[in-house]
Amino acid sequence: MKSKPTIISYLFSAGLILATIGCTTGNHHKNAQKMSTTEQTPIFPKGNPQPSEYFTGAAFLYPLLSRDKNNDFVLGSVTFEPGARTLWHTHPRGQVLIVIEGEGIYQERGKPARHLKKGDVVNIPENVEHWHGATAHSKFVHIAITNYKGEQNVVWLQPVSEAEYEAANKQ
Amino acid sequence: MKSKPTIISYLFSAGLILATIGCTTGNHHKNAQKMSTTEQTPIFPKGNPQPSEYFTGAAFLYPLLSRDKNNDFVLGSVTFEPGARTLWHTHPRGQVLIVIEGEGIYQERGKPARHLKKGDVVNIPENVEHWHGATAHSKFVHIAITNYKGEQNVVWLQPVSEAEYEAANKQ
Repeated sequence: MKSKPTIISYLFSAGLILATIGCTTGNHHKNAQKMSTTEQTPIFPKGNPQPSEYFTGAAFLYPLLSRDKNNDFVLGSVTFEPGARTLWHTHPRGQVLIVIEGEGIYQERGKPARHLKKGDVVNIPENVEHWHGATAHSKFVHIAITNYKGEQNVVWLQPVSEAEYEAANKQ
Repeated sequence: MKSKPTIISYLFSAGLILATIGCTTGNHHKNAQKMSTTEQTPIFPKGNPQPSEYFTGAAFLYPLLSRDKNNDFVLGSVTFEPGARTLWHTHPRGQVLIVIEGEGIYQERGKPARHLKKGDVVNIPENVEHWHGATAHSKFVHIAITNYKGEQNVVWLQPVSEAEYEAANKQ
Protein backbone atom coordinates (compact mmCIF):
# COMPACT_ATOMS: atom_id res chain seq x y z
CA MET A 1 0.00 0.00 0.00
CA LYS A 2 2.85 2.41 0.76
CA SER A 3 4.82 1.92 -2.49
CA LYS A 4 1.95 2.90 -4.84
CA PRO A 5 1.52 6.49 -3.58
CA THR A 6 5.34 6.95 -3.69
CA ILE A 7 5.64 5.89 -7.36
CA ILE A 8 2.67 8.00 -8.27
CA SER A 9 4.00 11.10 -6.56
CA TYR A 10 7.41 10.58 -8.25
CA LEU A 11 5.78 10.46 -11.65
CA PHE A 12 3.63 13.52 -10.88
CA SER A 13 6.70 15.41 -9.76
CA ALA A 14 8.65 14.24 -12.83
CA GLY A 15 5.87 15.58 -14.99
CA LEU A 16 6.00 18.94 -13.23
CA ILE A 17 9.77 19.10 -13.48
CA LEU A 18 9.88 18.24 -17.19
CA ALA A 19 7.22 20.78 -18.02
CA THR A 20 8.99 23.46 -16.01
CA ILE A 21 12.28 22.76 -17.81
CA GLY A 22 10.47 22.95 -21.12
CA CYS A 23 8.81 26.24 -20.17
CA THR A 24 12.04 27.83 -18.99
CA THR A 25 13.93 26.92 -22.16
CA GLY A 26 11.11 28.23 -24.32
CA ASN A 27 11.02 31.38 -22.20
CA HIS A 28 14.66 32.32 -22.78
CA HIS A 29 14.34 31.88 -26.51
CA LYS A 30 11.15 33.91 -26.73
CA ASN A 31 12.53 36.67 -24.56
CA ALA A 32 15.74 36.84 -26.58
CA GLN A 33 13.64 37.19 -29.72
CA LYS A 34 11.41 39.81 -28.12
CA MET A 35 14.37 41.94 -26.93
CA SER A 36 16.06 42.04 -30.33
CA THR A 37 12.79 42.85 -32.10
CA THR A 38 11.97 45.75 -29.77
CA GLU A 39 15.48 47.23 -29.85
CA GLN A 40 15.50 47.37 -33.64
CA THR A 41 12.55 49.79 -33.98
CA PRO A 42 14.19 52.90 -35.52
CA ILE A 43 12.89 56.39 -34.87
CA PHE A 44 13.13 57.34 -38.56
CA PRO A 45 13.17 55.45 -41.85
CA LYS A 46 16.64 54.91 -43.37
CA GLY A 47 15.95 57.24 -46.27
CA ASN A 48 17.97 57.62 -49.45
CA PRO A 49 21.29 55.89 -50.20
CA GLN A 50 24.11 58.40 -50.27
CA PRO A 51 26.62 58.76 -53.12
CA SER A 52 30.18 57.47 -52.98
CA GLU A 53 31.45 60.98 -53.76
CA TYR A 54 30.70 61.81 -50.12
CA PHE A 55 30.39 58.48 -48.30
CA THR A 56 32.32 55.19 -48.22
CA GLY A 57 30.13 52.12 -47.73
CA ALA A 58 26.37 52.02 -47.24
CA ALA A 59 25.07 55.33 -45.84
CA PHE A 60 21.56 56.78 -46.00
CA LEU A 61 19.95 60.15 -45.41
CA TYR A 62 16.37 60.79 -44.27
CA PRO A 63 15.67 64.52 -44.57
CA LEU A 64 13.73 66.02 -41.64
CA LEU A 65 13.66 69.79 -42.28
CA SER A 66 15.04 72.20 -44.87
CA ARG A 67 16.58 75.53 -44.01
CA ASP A 68 14.05 78.35 -43.64
CA LYS A 69 13.79 81.89 -42.31
CA ASN A 70 13.88 80.72 -38.67
CA ASN A 71 16.03 77.60 -38.87
CA ASP A 72 19.40 78.50 -40.35
CA PHE A 73 20.33 74.83 -40.67
CA VAL A 74 19.25 71.68 -42.46
CA LEU A 75 18.06 68.76 -40.30
CA GLY A 76 18.32 65.08 -41.19
CA SER A 77 18.79 61.58 -39.88
CA VAL A 78 21.86 59.73 -41.18
CA THR A 79 22.25 55.95 -41.03
CA PHE A 80 25.57 54.18 -41.54
CA GLU A 81 25.76 50.42 -42.00
CA PRO A 82 28.79 48.78 -40.33
CA GLY A 83 31.97 49.99 -42.04
CA ALA A 84 30.32 53.03 -43.65
CA ARG A 85 31.58 56.56 -43.02
CA THR A 86 31.69 60.04 -44.50
CA LEU A 87 34.70 61.31 -46.41
CA TRP A 88 36.95 63.81 -44.61
CA HIS A 89 35.13 67.13 -44.70
CA THR A 90 34.58 70.50 -42.98
CA HIS A 91 31.56 72.66 -42.17
CA PRO A 92 31.91 76.44 -42.57
CA ARG A 93 29.62 77.03 -39.58
CA GLY A 94 29.83 73.74 -37.71
CA GLN A 95 27.40 70.88 -37.21
CA VAL A 96 25.74 69.13 -34.28
CA LEU A 97 25.40 65.33 -34.18
CA ILE A 98 22.85 63.66 -31.87
CA VAL A 99 23.41 59.90 -31.71
CA ILE A 100 20.12 58.00 -31.57
CA GLU A 101 21.15 54.42 -32.32
CA GLY A 102 24.15 52.11 -32.47
CA GLU A 103 27.86 52.83 -32.16
CA GLY A 104 30.03 55.09 -34.25
CA ILE A 105 33.22 57.09 -34.56
CA TYR A 106 34.01 60.79 -34.82
CA GLN A 107 37.55 61.88 -35.62
CA GLU A 108 39.22 65.25 -36.18
CA ARG A 109 42.41 65.50 -38.23
CA GLY A 110 45.44 64.73 -36.06
CA LYS A 111 43.42 63.65 -33.02
CA PRO A 112 42.45 60.25 -31.59
CA ALA A 113 39.12 58.81 -32.71
CA ARG A 114 36.19 59.40 -30.37
CA HIS A 115 33.83 56.43 -30.02
CA LEU A 116 30.18 57.44 -29.91
CA LYS A 117 27.07 55.74 -28.54
CA LYS A 118 23.34 56.43 -28.22
CA GLY A 119 22.72 59.69 -26.39
CA ASP A 120 26.05 61.33 -27.26
CA VAL A 121 26.03 64.87 -28.70
CA VAL A 122 28.98 66.21 -30.72
CA ASN A 123 29.35 69.95 -31.35
CA ILE A 124 31.58 70.02 -34.42
CA PRO A 125 33.45 73.34 -34.77
CA GLU A 126 33.66 75.32 -38.00
CA ASN A 127 36.41 74.54 -40.53
CA VAL A 128 37.85 71.55 -38.67
CA GLU A 129 38.65 68.56 -40.89
CA HIS A 130 36.81 65.51 -39.57
CA TRP A 131 34.80 62.40 -40.47
CA HIS A 132 32.12 60.30 -38.78
CA GLY A 133 30.58 56.90 -39.37
CA ALA A 134 29.71 53.49 -38.03
CA THR A 135 32.23 51.21 -36.37
CA ALA A 136 33.37 48.18 -38.36
CA HIS A 137 30.89 45.97 -36.50
CA SER A 138 27.92 48.17 -35.60
CA LYS A 139 25.28 50.21 -37.35
CA PHE A 140 25.19 53.93 -36.42
CA VAL A 141 22.38 56.49 -36.65
CA HIS A 142 22.58 60.18 -35.80
CA ILE A 143 20.51 63.32 -36.27
CA ALA A 144 22.57 66.06 -37.91
CA ILE A 145 21.93 69.81 -37.50
CA THR A 146 24.10 71.41 -40.19
CA ASN A 147 24.44 75.18 -40.04
CA TYR A 148 24.73 77.40 -43.10
CA LYS A 149 27.24 80.12 -43.84
CA GLY A 150 25.69 81.90 -46.77
CA GLU A 151 24.63 79.14 -49.15
CA GLN A 152 27.24 76.62 -48.02
CA ASN A 153 27.17 74.04 -45.21
CA VAL A 154 29.89 71.51 -46.13
CA VAL A 155 33.21 71.20 -47.98
CA TRP A 156 34.06 67.64 -49.03
CA LEU A 157 37.68 66.40 -49.01
CA GLN A 158 39.24 62.95 -49.50
CA PRO A 159 38.05 59.49 -48.44
CA VAL A 160 38.97 57.99 -45.08
CA SER A 161 41.46 55.28 -46.06
CA GLU A 162 41.15 51.70 -44.88
CA ALA A 163 44.27 52.17 -42.74
CA GLU A 164 42.85 55.31 -41.10
CA TYR A 165 39.50 53.61 -40.54
CA GLU A 166 41.04 50.48 -39.07
CA ALA A 167 43.24 52.53 -36.72
CA ALA A 168 40.20 54.54 -35.58
CA ASN A 169 38.28 51.37 -34.81
CA LYS A 170 41.09 50.16 -32.60
CA GLN A 171 41.41 53.38 -30.61
CA MET B 1 -3.30 -4.59 -13.83
CA LYS B 2 -4.74 -2.26 -16.48
CA SER B 3 -6.12 0.29 -14.00
CA LYS B 4 -2.75 1.13 -12.37
CA PRO B 5 -0.93 2.40 -15.53
CA THR B 6 -4.03 4.43 -16.44
CA ILE B 7 -4.17 6.22 -13.07
CA ILE B 8 -0.43 6.84 -13.19
CA SER B 9 -0.53 8.27 -16.71
CA TYR B 10 -3.45 10.51 -15.73
CA LEU B 11 -1.47 11.91 -12.80
CA PHE B 12 1.64 12.39 -14.97
CA SER B 13 -0.42 14.20 -17.56
CA ALA B 14 -2.10 16.28 -14.88
CA GLY B 15 1.31 17.27 -13.63
CA LEU B 16 2.38 18.30 -17.11
CA ILE B 17 -0.81 20.23 -17.69
CA LEU B 18 -0.65 22.11 -14.39
CA ALA B 19 2.99 23.04 -14.94
CA THR B 20 2.25 24.22 -18.47
CA ILE B 21 -0.62 26.39 -17.25
CA GLY B 22 1.65 27.78 -14.57
CA CYS B 23 4.40 28.47 -17.09
CA THR B 24 2.10 30.18 -19.59
CA THR B 25 0.65 32.49 -16.95
CA GLY B 26 4.14 33.30 -15.68
CA ASN B 27 5.28 33.79 -19.28
CA HIS B 28 2.74 36.49 -20.08
CA HIS B 29 3.64 38.38 -16.96
CA LYS B 30 7.39 38.13 -17.56
CA ASN B 31 7.07 39.08 -21.19
CA ALA B 32 4.92 42.04 -20.30
CA GLN B 33 7.58 43.09 -17.83
CA LYS B 34 10.40 42.53 -20.30
CA MET B 35 8.66 44.43 -23.11
CA SER B 36 8.07 47.42 -20.90
CA THR B 37 11.68 47.28 -19.63
CA THR B 38 13.20 47.14 -23.13
CA GLU B 39 10.91 49.80 -24.59
CA GLN B 40 11.73 52.15 -21.74
CA THR B 41 15.46 52.49 -22.57
CA PRO B 42 15.55 56.23 -23.14
CA ILE B 43 18.10 57.96 -25.36
CA PHE B 44 18.72 60.66 -22.74
CA PRO B 45 18.28 60.92 -18.99
CA LYS B 46 15.11 62.70 -17.84
CA GLY B 47 17.03 65.66 -16.47
CA ASN B 48 15.75 68.40 -14.19
CA PRO B 49 12.12 68.83 -13.06
CA GLN B 50 10.62 71.93 -14.63
CA PRO B 51 8.84 74.67 -12.67
CA SER B 52 5.07 75.10 -12.56
CA GLU B 53 5.48 78.68 -13.84
CA TYR B 54 6.04 77.14 -17.28
CA PHE B 55 4.73 73.56 -17.09
CA THR B 56 1.63 71.83 -15.72
CA GLY B 57 2.28 68.37 -14.31
CA ALA B 58 5.59 66.50 -14.21
CA ALA B 59 7.96 67.75 -16.94
CA PHE B 60 11.75 67.47 -17.13
CA LEU B 61 14.51 69.07 -19.17
CA TYR B 62 17.88 67.48 -20.02
CA PRO B 63 20.08 70.17 -21.60
CA LEU B 64 22.10 69.01 -24.62
CA LEU B 65 23.79 72.15 -25.99
CA SER B 66 23.85 75.86 -25.20
CA ARG B 67 23.72 78.57 -27.81
CA ASP B 68 27.12 79.49 -29.25
CA LYS B 69 28.65 81.34 -32.16
CA ASN B 70 27.65 78.66 -34.68
CA ASN B 71 24.45 77.28 -33.18
CA ASP B 72 21.94 80.11 -32.78
CA PHE B 73 19.64 77.88 -30.74
CA VAL B 74 19.52 75.97 -27.48
CA LEU B 75 19.16 72.18 -27.67
CA GLY B 76 17.51 69.97 -25.08
CA SER B 77 15.48 66.84 -24.45
CA VAL B 78 12.11 67.39 -22.77
CA THR B 79 10.18 64.60 -21.02
CA PHE B 80 6.52 64.89 -20.07
CA GLU B 81 4.86 62.35 -17.79
CA PRO B 82 1.24 61.51 -18.74
CA GLY B 83 -0.93 64.61 -18.28
CA ALA B 84 2.00 67.05 -18.26
CA ARG B 85 2.24 69.91 -20.76
CA THR B 86 3.76 73.34 -21.28
CA LEU B 87 1.78 76.49 -20.65
CA TRP B 88 0.57 78.40 -23.73
CA HIS B 89 3.60 80.21 -25.14
CA THR B 90 5.27 81.66 -28.25
CA HIS B 91 8.78 81.62 -29.69
CA PRO B 92 10.07 84.82 -31.32
CA ARG B 93 12.02 82.80 -33.89
CA GLY B 94 10.25 79.45 -33.84
CA GLN B 95 11.22 76.04 -32.50
CA VAL B 96 11.65 72.54 -33.91
CA LEU B 97 10.37 69.49 -32.02
CA ILE B 98 11.71 66.00 -32.82
CA VAL B 99 9.65 63.30 -31.11
CA ILE B 100 11.83 60.45 -29.85
CA GLU B 101 9.50 58.56 -27.52
CA GLY B 102 5.87 58.11 -26.56
CA GLU B 103 2.78 60.03 -27.65
CA GLY B 104 2.00 63.69 -27.30
CA ILE B 105 -0.03 66.67 -28.42
CA TYR B 106 0.80 69.93 -30.18
CA GLN B 107 -1.85 72.60 -30.48
CA GLU B 108 -1.90 76.11 -31.93
CA ARG B 109 -4.44 78.67 -30.69
CA GLY B 110 -7.75 78.23 -32.50
CA LYS B 111 -6.74 75.03 -34.31
CA PRO B 112 -7.43 71.33 -33.67
CA ALA B 113 -4.88 69.46 -31.59
CA ARG B 114 -2.25 67.50 -33.51
CA HIS B 115 -1.40 64.11 -32.02
CA LEU B 116 2.31 63.32 -32.20
CA LYS B 117 4.25 60.05 -32.13
CA LYS B 118 7.86 58.88 -32.28
CA GLY B 119 9.57 60.14 -35.45
CA ASP B 120 7.33 63.19 -35.93
CA VAL B 121 8.96 66.58 -36.52
CA VAL B 122 7.11 69.86 -35.82
CA ASN B 123 8.37 73.15 -37.26
CA ILE B 124 6.75 75.70 -34.94
CA PRO B 125 6.48 79.14 -36.55
CA GLU B 126 7.48 82.36 -34.84
CA ASN B 127 4.97 84.21 -32.62
CA VAL B 128 2.22 81.58 -32.86
CA GLU B 129 0.52 80.79 -29.54
CA HIS B 130 0.79 77.06 -28.88
CA TRP B 131 1.42 74.35 -26.29
CA HIS B 132 2.78 70.80 -26.32
CA GLY B 133 2.84 67.90 -23.92
CA ALA B 134 2.07 64.28 -23.21
CA THR B 135 -1.33 62.74 -23.76
CA ALA B 136 -3.36 61.93 -20.65
CA HIS B 137 -2.26 58.30 -20.81
CA SER B 138 1.21 58.27 -22.35
CA LYS B 139 4.64 59.63 -21.59
CA PHE B 140 6.15 61.93 -24.26
CA VAL B 141 9.77 62.83 -25.04
CA HIS B 142 11.00 65.26 -27.67
CA ILE B 143 14.21 67.01 -28.62
CA ALA B 144 13.68 70.80 -28.88
CA ILE B 145 15.75 73.13 -31.07
CA THR B 146 14.77 76.61 -29.85
CA ASN B 147 16.00 79.51 -31.94
CA TYR B 148 17.02 82.87 -30.50
CA LYS B 149 15.95 86.33 -31.56
CA GLY B 150 18.44 88.53 -29.78
CA GLU B 151 18.54 87.22 -26.21
CA GLN B 152 15.01 85.82 -26.21
CA ASN B 153 13.68 82.42 -27.28
CA VAL B 154 10.29 82.08 -25.52
CA VAL B 155 7.39 84.17 -24.19
CA TRP B 156 5.27 82.37 -21.58
CA LEU B 157 1.49 82.91 -21.40
CA GLN B 158 -1.29 81.21 -19.40
CA PRO B 159 -1.76 77.55 -18.41
CA VAL B 160 -3.60 75.07 -20.62
CA SER B 161 -6.84 74.55 -18.70
CA GLU B 162 -8.17 71.12 -17.82
CA ALA B 163 -11.05 71.67 -20.27
CA GLU B 164 -8.67 72.61 -23.10
CA TYR B 165 -6.39 69.66 -22.31
CA GLU B 166 -9.27 67.19 -22.15
CA ALA B 167 -10.68 68.42 -25.45
CA ALA B 168 -7.27 68.13 -27.10
CA ASN B 169 -6.90 64.54 -25.90
CA LYS B 170 -10.22 63.66 -27.49
CA GLN B 171 -9.41 65.19 -30.89
